[in-house]
Formats: sequence, C-alpha cells, structure tokens
Amino acid sequence: MEQTNATQVDVLIVGAGPAGLVCANALATSGIRVKIIDHKPERVSGHADGVMPRTTEIIHSYGLGADFMEQGSPAHTIAFYNTRADGGGIENTNHVPFIHEDDTRWRYCVTLHQGAIEKLFVNSMAKKGVTVDRPVRPVSIQVSKDPAVLRDRNAYPVTISLENLNSGEEPEIVHAKFVLGGDGAHSWIRKQLGISMDGEATSRVWGAFDFKPAQVPNVFPDWRHVATVVAGDHTILLIPREKEKIRCYIELGDAATADVEGGRREPSKRTGPEELTEVAKKAFHPFSIAPAHVSDVEWYTNYIIGQRVASKFSVGERAFIAGDACHTHSPKGGQGMNVSMNDSHNLAWKLAYFIKGWADHSILGTYELERRPVAQALIDFDKWYSAGYSAKARAEYAKANGGVAPEPMEGFRRMSGFTSGVGITYQPSILVSETPSVDSAASKLVLGRRLPPRVLVRIADCHPLNLQDECPSDGRFKILVFTGDLTDSAQAERVATAATALAGPQGLLRSFPDFEGMFDILPIVKGVERKTPYTRVPSELWSHWSKVFVDEPSRQDAEAGICYESFGISPEKGAIVVVRPDAHVGIAAHLDAVKDVEAYFSGFLLKST
Amino acid sequence: MEQTNATQVDVLIVGAGPAGLVCANALATSGIRVKIIDHKPERVSGHADGVMPRTTEIIHSYGLGADFMEQGSPAHTIAFYNTRADGGGIENTNHVPFIHEDDTRWRYCVTLHQGAIEKLFVNSMAKKGVTVDRPVRPVSIQVSKDPAVLRDRNAYPVTISLENLNSGEEPEIVHAKFVLGGDGAHSWIRKQLGISMDGEATSRVWGAFDFKPAQVPNVFPDWRHVATVVAGDHTILLIPREKEKIRCYIELGDAATADVEGGRREPSKRTGPEELTEVAKKAFHPFSIAPAHVSDVEWYTNYIIGQRVASKFSVGERAFIAGDACHTHSPKGGQGMNVSMNDSHNLAWKLAYFIKGWADHSILGTYELERRPVAQALIDFDKWYSAGYSAKARAEYAKANGGVAPEPMEGFRRMSGFTSGVGITYQPSILVSETPSVDSAASKLVLGRRLPPRVLVRIADCHPLNLQDECPSDGRFKILVFTGDLTDSAQAERVATAATALAGPQGLLRSFPDFEGMFDILPIVKGVERKTPYTRVPSELWSHWSKVFVDEPSRQDAEAGICYESFGISPEKGAIVVVRPDAHVGIAAHLDAVKDVEAYFSGFLLKST
Repeated sequence: MEQTNATQVDVLIVGAGPAGLVCANALATSGIRVKIIDHKPERVSGHADGVMPRTTEIIHSYGLGADFMEQGSPAHTIAFYNTRADGGGIENTNHVPFIHEDDTRWRYCVTLHQGAIEKLFVNSMAKKGVTVDRPVRPVSIQVSKDPAVLRDRNAYPVTISLENLNSGEEPEIVHAKFVLGGDGAHSWIRKQLGISMDGEATSRVWGAFDFKPAQVPNVFPDWRHVATVVAGDHTILLIPREKEKIRCYIELGDAATADVEGGRREPSKRTGPEELTEVAKKAFHPFSIAPAHVSDVEWYTNYIIGQRVASKFSVGERAFIAGDACHTHSPKGGQGMNVSMNDSHNLAWKLAYFIKGWADHSILGTYELERRPVAQALIDFDKWYSAGYSAKARAEYAKANGGVAPEPMEGFRRMSGFTSGVGITYQPSILVSETPSVDSAASKLVLGRRLPPRVLVRIADCHPLNLQDECPSDGRFKILVFTGDLTDSAQAERVATAATALAGPQGLLRSFPDFEGMFDILPIVKGVERKTPYTRVPSELWSHWSKVFVDEPSRQDAEAGICYESFGISPEKGAIVVVRPDAHVGIAAHLDAVKDVEAYFSGFLLKST
Repeated sequence: MEQTNATQVDVLIVGAGPAGLVCANALATSGIRVKIIDHKPERVSGHADGVMPRTTEIIHSYGLGADFMEQGSPAHTIAFYNTRADGGGIENTNHVPFIHEDDTRWRYCVTLHQGAIEKLFVNSMAKKGVTVDRPVRPVSIQVSKDPAVLRDRNAYPVTISLENLNSGEEPEIVHAKFVLGGDGAHSWIRKQLGISMDGEATSRVWGAFDFKPAQVPNVFPDWRHVATVVAGDHTILLIPREKEKIRCYIELGDAATADVEGGRREPSKRTGPEELTEVAKKAFHPFSIAPAHVSDVEWYTNYIIGQRVASKFSVGERAFIAGDACHTHSPKGGQGMNVSMNDSHNLAWKLAYFIKGWADHSILGTYELERRPVAQALIDFDKWYSAGYSAKARAEYAKANGGVAPEPMEGFRRMSGFTSGVGITYQPSILVSETPSVDSAASKLVLGRRLPPRVLVRIADCHPLNLQDECPSDGRFKILVFTGDLTDSAQAERVATAATALAGPQGLLRSFPDFEGMFDILPIVKGVERKTPYTRVPSELWSHWSKVFVDEPSRQDAEAGICYESFGISPEKGAIVVVRPDAHVGIAAHLDAVKDVEAYFSGFLLKST
C-alpha cells in the first residue's frame, strides 16, 4: 500500500449513530483529531426516538438543548389499557408518570426522531470542522498485540482500510491511536475483534410502524401519552412523537418459523403496514387509532428481540465498541439510544485525557468497568419489564424467577432511577472515590452518580442559574468549592488556606499539565443574605465575576437555596466536590483535606514534568 | 405633484424607535399595509435600555423572547449607597428587589441597548416584508378636517411628503389612512399637528455615560446590580448592562446658565467623559468604578430633564403620536422605552380592527383614553421618585406636597405595579367592562389589567404551558372558557349550551366578519385528575388537541393548578373571560351569560353584513 494513501488520526469512529456522534462531537470539541465514517446516507425515518432525562441533560451539556427541546415532543404520562370484561373493547385502567424521579429538571421523556438527534451532533461537529464521511465502510482492521505499543501514548496501534462506496477508488489506509465501533447491533467491528455476545434472542416477533393518526371523533384520547394496550393476543406500546406522529410497537406473537442467518434471526413472514394497521384497529376498539390511509404509514419494520450483552467492550483498550454494538434488547423501556449515548459520553473524555498526555493509561479501563454493568442491568430490566406485558411472558418469567412476575406499572416505578438514567451510579474505582463510612463532607451526595441539578444564585447580579448548566461537557473537571459562611472569620480563614492549597501559584491544580484546560473552579458560598459580595471570595477560586455563586433563596426561582442541605454539606465546614468531565461525582472532601483531592487525582492524572 | 410619485398606505409611521417599530411589526403581522421611515441610520449606542416585566411579556408575546433574553442582562436588585458619617466614602445601606411584583414571570428588569431591541422588531418585520426606509424625513403633512372623511374607513385623510436625505430626488407623496408620530421628544409630527406639551423642564442637569468598568481589586462590588449612590452634591444611578457594560447617570447640579433654543433647554456647559469619570471616581470612593481608560467611554450625553405630557394624543383620530413624542421625563425610573412600547402595543390592534372593517370608529378614541393617564402617572411618579434622590429636591418636593418627601426605596416598593407595568389598569370603556359589584364570574381578576401568567396543563399530553404564551400578540381576542368540572353532568350540560351559544354554527362569535381572524378559543377544564380527556370538551371550543387545557398540579411545574382559585372562578360555575388582542382583560362573564359577552362585543365590533 502506498504511503500517500495513508492517514493518521487520533480516533477513528465507525458508525455515525448516536453513540458514534456523541463521541466524535466531544472529541472534536476537545481538539482531538477524529474521523467518523458511516456506510449509509443520513437517516430520515425509523429507529429509536425516546430521550430519557439523563440523556436530555447530556444533550443540554453539549449546548444543544434549546434546539432539541424545540423539536421534540414531551411524554409525561403512561396510560394503561386492558380488555374490558364485557367484550366492549379496551378501557383505561391507570395513568402514571412515565418518569418517577424527581431530582431532574425534565420529569418527562422527550421523543424525537433519531435522525434529528443525530443532526444536532452533526451540526455541532461541523462547527469544529468535522463531518461524517459517507458512504464509507471499513474492509479490514488490525490492532497491535504488542503490550508496549498498546501502552505507548504516541503509537498508532490500529490500522484500518476504508472503502468509499461511491468513489470506486482504492481503499484508504487509516492509522489510528484508537478505533470506536458504534456500528450497531450487527457491528462489523465487534465481529472483527472477535467479541462474542452473551445472551439469547427471544422468540417473540414485533412489528413497529410510524404514522400520524387520523383525527376522528372516537380517536384514542391518550395518543399524546405513552400508552400500553393489552388486548387479547396482542400487546401494543404507543409512543407519541414530534409533528403529531406516533410510533406503535405491536407484539405479533411467537415466530415459530424464524430463520437463522449469519448468526441472527429474522421472522420468516413479513407483517406489512396494512396488517399492522388492522391489528391496531382491532386492539384499540372502541377507540380509533389509524392513519387516514395505509399509504400514510411513514415507516415500518418487523424484528425479533435479542437480549444480549457483549462479553467485553474493548480489545487492548485501543479498539472499543459502544451502543447497540454492546447491547441489544427490546424497545419497550425506551432505553436503547439513551444507553448508547451515555456509553460514548463516558468514553470520550477518557480518550482525550490519555491522548493529550493528561492521564495515565489506566483511565481507559474504566470504560468497560463503568458501562458494562449498565448494559447488563439493561438486559435484566428488559427481561423483567417485558414480562409484564403478556400473559405468556409473565408466566415464563414467574417460572424462571420463583413465581414472581411484575406489573409493568410497578416496573416503571421501581426502576425509574435506572430507566431515567439519573440514578445510574458508577462503582468505586480510580475515578470514583470510596465514600467514607462516617463524617462525609457531602453526606447526601452519591459518589459515582451524576451531579443533580440545583438552582444557585450568581452573587454579582442575583441571577438564578442551574448548577448543571455551569458544568457543561467542556472536557474539564469541575471543582465545586463550597466555602460555607464567609462572614464567619474562622471559616474565611479555612477557605483562604484551601484556596491557596488548591489553586494558588504552588497549589495542587497548578501541578498538572494544563490548569485552564483541565479544571474549572466554581465557588459556592452559603449565603447570609447579601452579606457576601463576590469580591470577598478568595481570588484563586474565580476567574470572572459570573463564576461565583451563593446558595440562597431567589425571588425568581423557588428551587434555589437547598444545595448545601440537600447535598449534606455543613455550612460551618464547607466541602470540595470534584465532578468529572462527564458530570459524575468523583470525590467529596473536606475543605482542609486538599490532600484527599490530591490522592484522588494522583490515581490517574499525570503531573507536569 | 405627479400621480406617479404618490403612494397609498394604510398606516405611515414616522420614527423607527421602539414605539414606531412595535406598531409597524404588529400591523405587518396583521396584514396591514404599513410604511415606516426614519431620518437617522440604525442606532448603535446610547439611549434607553431598561426593559420592565410587562414589556418583557410583550416582547415574548411577539415571539421575540428567546432572542431578547439571550442578549439582555438581568437587573434583580437595587443597592443603595450613602456617604459614611466618618468621611470614609460611601457605604451600602440596603439591597432591595428592583421589581416587587410577584405576579409576573420575570421578577427582574432586563437591560439591553435600545438598538438591539429595535433590531428584534426590525428582523421580525422583515419576515413580513416590511423594512425601515432610511434616511427619510417628512417635510409636510396635511390631515383632513372633514368629519365625514375622518370617519370614512376607506378614506386617506392624511397626506405627507417625504424627503429621502440621500437620493436628492423629489419628495414622495404618501396618502395614508393613518399616520403615527413615534419621532421622539422633539417630535416633528407633534409640532406640525400643533399639539402642546403640558408641564415644564426641571433645572437639573444630568450626564450619562456608558463603559465597561475596569476589574480592579476594589471594584464597586454591586456593579451588576442597579445602584443608587448619594455622595455629597452628586446623585448617581448605575445600571448594569449587557456585555459587562454599565450606564451611569450623574446628577450634575443646577443649570444656572441653561440656554433656551427652539422651545427646549440645553445645558450651556458640556460635561465630557473625562469630567464624568472624575465625578464618578470621587463619588464611589472607597470603591472603584471607572473605565480602564477614558477613551473606553462608549457614549455620553448631557441633558436637562423635562417632565411633560402631550395635551392630546391624536388629531382627528387619524394622526397619532406615541412614545417620547407624548411624554418626557427622567430616566431614573427606567420607564421611558417601556411606556413607549406599551403605547403602540395598545394602538396597533385598534388601527388594524378599524382598517379591516371589524370595529367601529369609536375604538380609536380608546387609545388616548387608556394611554394618556399612564403618561400622566409617569410624570407624577417621576417627580415623586426623583425627589428621593437629592437633599435639595427632597426639600422642594416636601414644600410643594405638604411636607412629605419619599425615600427612593419606598418609592420603588409602593409604585411597583406601575413601574413594572404589570399593574397598569385601563379604566372602564367600550373595551373594558365595568366590574359588577357582586357575584363576579372571576372575582379576583382585574378587568382592564393585563392577563397575569398562569401555568396550565395541556390535557392531551400533560405538558405544562403558560397561559400568557397561549395568548400571543396575534391580533385575536382570546376567549378563555373556564368549563369547570366536566365530570359533573349538569355542568357539562351548561358548558355544552354555552359552547353552542358562543361558537356553534349560529353562535355569537360566528356573527362577526372573521371568526378565525378575530377569535381564539381556549377551554380550561377544572381538573379531577386525568378524568377528563380532551375529547370530552365540546368540539365547538377547540380547533386542535393542543388547545385544550386543565387547571391541575403538574409534576414538572410547581406553579400549575392555581388558575381557577387565583382568578376567583368557581369550579362549580366556570366563566368566560375575554382577553383583548393586547392581553388586557375586557370582560368576565358567567357561562350562562353569553349575552353579556355579546353586549361587550356589540359595543365596538361590527357584525357581518
């Protein structure tokens, strides 16, 4: 192969779905040389569309929230319908919140066509000069097996050749420090890497189709809610979508004659839009939910659900997989795209820190450590939750699990921390400190979990702002310094000492390679109303007047003023809380224990040489 | 004059300041042929910049809120500083909210350069094909005196010739149904119409200048709040602005040698940026508030305050004036631009309704009836409030008003309904029904005042929305139908009857010329949680699933669920509330009193012929 046709990149991403794009956009923002390819043209219909609260937070953290919220459709409630005993069709049995978690700013799911979500990230990347190469597919991949090469920060252990499906030219050879396979459930990268999928396919066939329901007098009145309808043999899940469309998932029954081809199963008989429409019409009786005409069905598919997790998420910590390449499951919990985007949101900053020489190689191992348990939990949830839908599945589940089968309603409630994403907690590791058993500096803040939203007041102008918005996905650790009450002179003294130790000229954070690039300090005063001007906070702790906050009530926002108390931080003592670039809490330390923060960072960051 | 050089327009607007632009944009949105001219190029600095809550609501109502809020800077608090007794300079004596009103969504003032606010409306108009003709000035104006012509809807009683200051061409002759003078304090239109200004100029000279303060260690810590500083001879008002700038108003003392020229006074001695900077430096001691260099002063001016109101606001109800052309006063209350924008927000829809043949001529008289009292109140407030600032003015005010001089702080608190704009209440007229003394259908809703914000829940998808956002400035009357509890069959029957009477094929609202263009109906159910699907509301009352609301609590918004109670509407009885196109409440009627609504509309609307 000729040298002229070879390219060097830091990270090659295969697959421009949600997992690939989140990673590519984050890396482009961090100034990493990234290349992203996809063998398909841009997506215009079909595919996942439910965005759960944690994912909504992430989209906001990349500055794409306003555009996203404007396009999306809210799903607040789930309505349950069952067959009436009198044979008169279905009746409503309950309405419950779709999201039970309170500690999130968006207590609802937002539905939006996957293509539109991808477009948000494509547009964002484009501003940093990165575009998706289409239609391009990988045709060969080699990953070095030499441990020394794998650990060499400057090495390019991955060689991939790429074929442009349009140009007909010779494949392009790409040498990459890393490759990420975000290439879906049938991942080519995963297969080439020889990673197996653990678990199995179910035998249940599902159909899904998208349409705008005709507005007739007996229209199903809950078509703008999520609705589950159990009607005879069929279980239907209805999802409201943007532009007055809906998605219907219909369980079509056992696929007795499913084909097995290339390791995957497909239903042998296709169920087309006419038949799907007919099934829905019957199931929704006495209500109507149907397109005005069958040709108005925008998209449809049939599939058999597999419930599988990849046996590992990387090879040599140089070739990674994320998203559907790692986990396949049913769409019922509305989880797929969310877990996928969270996968690469977790991975991207770790790649950047290693590539920039800021972090040790060990940081790369935490991706699988943190994300594979989530994928496994997703499959477990999917089995348990799916069982709530049909009598047969309930019986099977009960048999396999000691006689207990859940109600889907109850499933939503109990699993809300997981399904909303906001309760997902990474285990202790080099990136998540062990919570001390007593005397924690922030006793109610869960280490390893994402930083919850809190309304703070910007001291200089009394404007209320959300702490989450002050912690954007900009690649930096956020060092929250809870100063306590600065009108107390002894406390002011402690804060001054901590400020010097943390961020003074000889301070801890200055000992790493790029103070400005790696850290953002946010001082949060415990307010005695209007008694602490921002200029009283030690200047080592703020770079601009707009970055000094107070935890006090606000006339403008009733949610302000609970941060110290709800985090379990004493106003008399204060605390230092380190938030990772992906917004998960790393450590909470006492103000006079900067050494604990030093020990935490020393576990994976490299000091300046 | 040649016929080829003559133009016909519905409304000619002279002056593209806030008053002129609000009117032009509203008329363009309503499909009225409007022409707007200004003799100056676009504004880039100086002039008014404080936007009060009611004006913020209006900007949102025209769909310009997001852009506005993104650019503006919040002013939540007013800080008071006085000279210390020990000679050590000034000290803080108090912080109080700048806006005391609670019943508004923005409990703060937003500051933004007037040019940027104008640009919002210029851009909005441009989408409807209307641009400002610049630099163009009127050189002659004639208004017919023939009563028959003035009352003829199809007549063009105004003839104006316009000179383009660049082209050097012959003046253009414009025949207009109406002319609006939004051409400022020295209004050419007002003078040509022979309208006098009542009131007088003060003898106090003020200087104002804009700059970005240098960030030094002893920076005045309240520079992002509104601050009033009384230091010796000088009173200073500091206003925080966008892009980290501030505006300082400095009272420079009596203008003993003020010139009188062309009916207006100017200080004979100019006080330039060096001197203004020096005065501020001394006044703010021991704090620092100054530009890094005097050349960083972006803009400055000197002026003498006049406190005057135009004796009338129109001639023949065909030539109108609005904004500073009607009222001049000090900038201290942050009122000028706000009252100006509210003037033409009040006028625009009335012009449109008359021109379209929807309303009787009498609607035009309500402009002066409603707005002149506001202008007069503004001057009274200005005198009273200004008196709080200096010892001399306080003594003078006390002498003239029986010994009572107010504190500025107290002024803010007591006058908050007026200064915020949200408490302004138009008197009973053909457009504002007299509140019945007993048994009002909405006993806590003030007729004549703007509809307050309330969070409602959209029934179909449980999404919380603000009632104000559902009542945009789209030129339509909003017919709020509070249905009460529809699970009660007797109430459901009453609602069905009212729905037919209001909006059935033979209903009241169908008897006017343009049902869709004149009215928007918003049914608001009193919720028994989730028991009333939107399809149960009589179909005469809604055009789309997204326009049916329920007053019930929301998990997503703690402010939801208080609408009936806070408006004084009985869930057992319901009510019909008519909101005018400018969002002021016209009438509240009982559900079974559609005849009251008919009487209200018959007072000024014309039925179809």
